[in-house]
Amino acid sequence: MNQSMAQKPHEQLAATLSDEMDAVNTLIRTRMASKHAPRIPEVTAHLVEAGGKRLRPMLTLAAAKMCGYDGEHHLKLAATVEFIHTATLLHDDVVDESGQRRGRPTANLLWDNKSSVLVGDYLFSRSFQLMVETGSLQVLDILANASATIAEGEVLQMTAAQDLKTGEDIYLQVVRGKTAALFSAATEVGGVIAGADDAQVKALFDYGDALGIAFQIADDLLDYQGDAKATGKNVGDDFRERKLTLPVIKAVSQATDEEREFWKRTIEKGRQEDGDLEHALELMDKYGTLAATRDDAHGWANKAKDALSVLPKHPIRQMLHDLADYVVARLN
Amino acid sequence: MNQSMAQKPHEQLAATLSDEMDAVNTLIRTRMASKHAPRIPEVTAHLVEAGGKRLRPMLTLAAAKMCGYDGEHHLKLAATVEFIHTATLLHDDVVDESGQRRGRPTANLLWDNKSSVLVGDYLFSRSFQLMVETGSLQVLDILANASATIAEGEVLQMTAAQDLKTGEDIYLQVVRGKTAALFSAATEVGGVIAGADDAQVKALFDYGDALGIAFQIADDLLDYQGDAKATGKNVGDDFRERKLTLPVIKAVSQATDEEREFWKRTIEKGRQEDGDLEHALELMDKYGTLAATRDDAHGWANKAKDALSVLPKHPIRQMLHDLADYVVARLN
Repeated sequence: MNQSMAQKPHEQLAATLSDEMDAVNTLIRTRMASKHAPRIPEVTAHLVEAGGKRLRPMLTLAAAKMCGYDGEHHLKLAATVEFIHTATLLHDDVVDESGQRRGRPTANLLWDNKSSVLVGDYLFSRSFQLMVETGSLQVLDILANASATIAEGEVLQMTAAQDLKTGEDIYLQVVRGKTAALFSAATEVGGVIAGADDAQVKALFDYGDALGIAFQIADDLLDYQGDAKATGKNVGDDFRERKLTLPVIKAVSQATDEEREFWKRTIEKGRQEDGDLEHALELMDKYGTLAATRDDAHGWANKAKDALSVLPKHPIRQMLHDLADYVVARLN
Repeated sequence: MNQSMAQKPHEQLAATLSDEMDAVNTLIRTRMASKHAPRIPEVTAHLVEAGGKRLRPMLTLAAAKMCGYDGEHHLKLAATVEFIHTATLLHDDVVDESGQRRGRPTANLLWDNKSSVLVGDYLFSRSFQLMVETGSLQVLDILANASATIAEGEVLQMTAAQDLKTGEDIYLQVVRGKTAALFSAATEVGGVIAGADDAQVKALFDYGDALGIAFQIADDLLDYQGDAKATGKNVGDDFRERKLTLPVIKAVSQATDEEREFWKRTIEKGRQEDGDLEHALELMDKYGTLAATRDDAHGWANKAKDALSVLPKHPIRQMLHDLADYVVARLN
C-alpha cells in the first residue's frame, strides 16, 4: 500500500482533477439556469448542491485525461453525465415515493411530483444539448444507448422487483440500468472524445460497467450486513421494501418449498411480520448467499481492474484501479 | 375552394403519405418493444393505438417529401417526433393528474404514475436513438433545442398558470413549449434531412411554429366558446382548472380594480362559486377578448401560410396551406 492511500481513491481523483471539476460545476450551474422558470434551478440546486461525490463526471474527466485529451469537450460531457444522473434521481424519487435523498428531504416532498417530473425532463434535454455541442456522433450514440438501458432497467425493476421468478440475469440488467450503464457511458465517452483507439474505448466501457456492477452489488449487500451509521441505511430496508436483490435471489433459487412460501409471503405479497427479517437473514446464512454475493462483488471489481491493462500508464490509471478496490473494500 | 376540399387537409396529407405513414407505424411498433419489460409496449400501445391524427409525424414526412427527399431517414424522424409527443403526454398526465386522454382512461390511471414516468423516459431515450441513427448533427441540434423548449414551457406553465402577472409573452412561451416547439421541429427536420436550403429550412420552422401557435390559441378559445360535442371539452374547463389562457389574460390586462379582485379570487386563489364562469364570460365579452383571441389565431394561421411561399411548388404545399386555414376554421 503506497503512501497516497491515506487519501481515498475518489479523493485522489478529485484532487488531481480539481480545476476541471470546478469548470464542470460552473458549467452545471450555468446550464441549469432558466430565465423564465426559476423553479428549475431551485429544484436542481437542491439536489446538485447536496453534494454527493460527483463520481460520474469525475470518471469522464479521468478517462479523457488518462487518454491524453487536452480539449474542452470533456467538461461538457462530464456535465451531461451529471445532469442525466440528477434527472434520474428526480424521477426515481417520484417512482419510489421517497422522502429522503442524501440525508435531505426529496424534491418531490419539498415541491411536488410535478416539479420532479418536469425538472427531470428539463435536465435530460439540457444534457442532450450539451452532448450535441461536442459534435461527436459516436458520443451521442453511446449516451442514447445508455439512456435506453437506464430507462428499460427502471421499468424492469418496477415489474420484476417483487417477482420471485426474477433470476440473476434480470438482476444484472436492472443493475446495469440503475448504475452501471451511466458509469460505463461516463468512462467510454471520455475515451472517445480523447480519440482513444477501439481497444481502449472498449476497455473504458468494460471498466465502467464492472465498476458500476461491483458498486451496486456492494450496496445491496450492505443493506443486509452494513453498519447503519456508515451506510446511512438501516439493515433490512430492501427487505422491508420487498426488493429482490442478489442475496435474496440466491436464497430463493435454493429454497425448499416451505422457504419459498416464506419468500412469497414476505416479498411477493408483502405481508411481513415481526421476526421475518431475522428469518430472512437465517436463510441467507444457511445458503451462504451473503458470502457468495460478496464474492460476486469482488469478481466484478477484479474485472474492472483487469480492463485497465490496455490503457495508458498514467497516475490516473492507478487511481481507477484503487477505486475498484475501494468500492468493495467496505465489504471486508 | 377546390373539389378536394371535401376531404379535410390532414386527411389529404394522410392519403398522400399513406405508404410512408404505414412504414412509420411499423417502426413505432418495432421500437417501442422491450424484450424484458413488457409493461413498456403495453403502456405505449395504450396511447399510440388510441389514434390521434398523427399530425406531427405527418408534418415531418410532408416537409421532407415536399423538399424532394427520397431516402429513408424521414421515417425515423417521424417516429422520433411521435415518440417525443407520446412521452410528453405520459408525463403531462402525471403532472395534471388527468383521468382521461383521447376519450380513454389515462395510463397513470390504468397502471400507475411510476409507469407513466418511466415509460415516458424510455420513449424519450428511444427517440434519441432513432435520431442518432440519421447521423445528422443538425437534426440532433434542432431536436435537442425543441426538447429544452418543451420542458421549460411545461415548468413555466406549472409556475405561471395561476399567476395574474402572466402576460401574453409568457403565454406565448408556454404555448411554444406545449405545442409549437414540436410542430416546428417536426417540419424543420423534414427539410434538413431533405437537404433543403437555409431559407427553406427557416420557412419550415416558421410554418410549424405559427401553425402550432394558431392551433393552441384556437384550442384555448374553444374552451370558452366551443361546442362540447365537437370539441370533447366542456365550456369553461380551463376556467375551472384555473388556467390563465389568452382570453383571460387579455381580460385581466384591462381589468378594473374590482374585476381584478374577481380574477384573483377565481384563478389565483381558486375559490370559485356558482355564476363565476358566467361572470368571467361577461368580462371577456365586455373587453372583446374572445374576438381579439380569434384575431390572434387567424394572424398566426396567416403567418404559417405566408411562410410557405419560398417552399417548392408541390401538391403538399397546398395541403399545408389548407391545414393552416383548417385549424382556425372551426373558430368562425
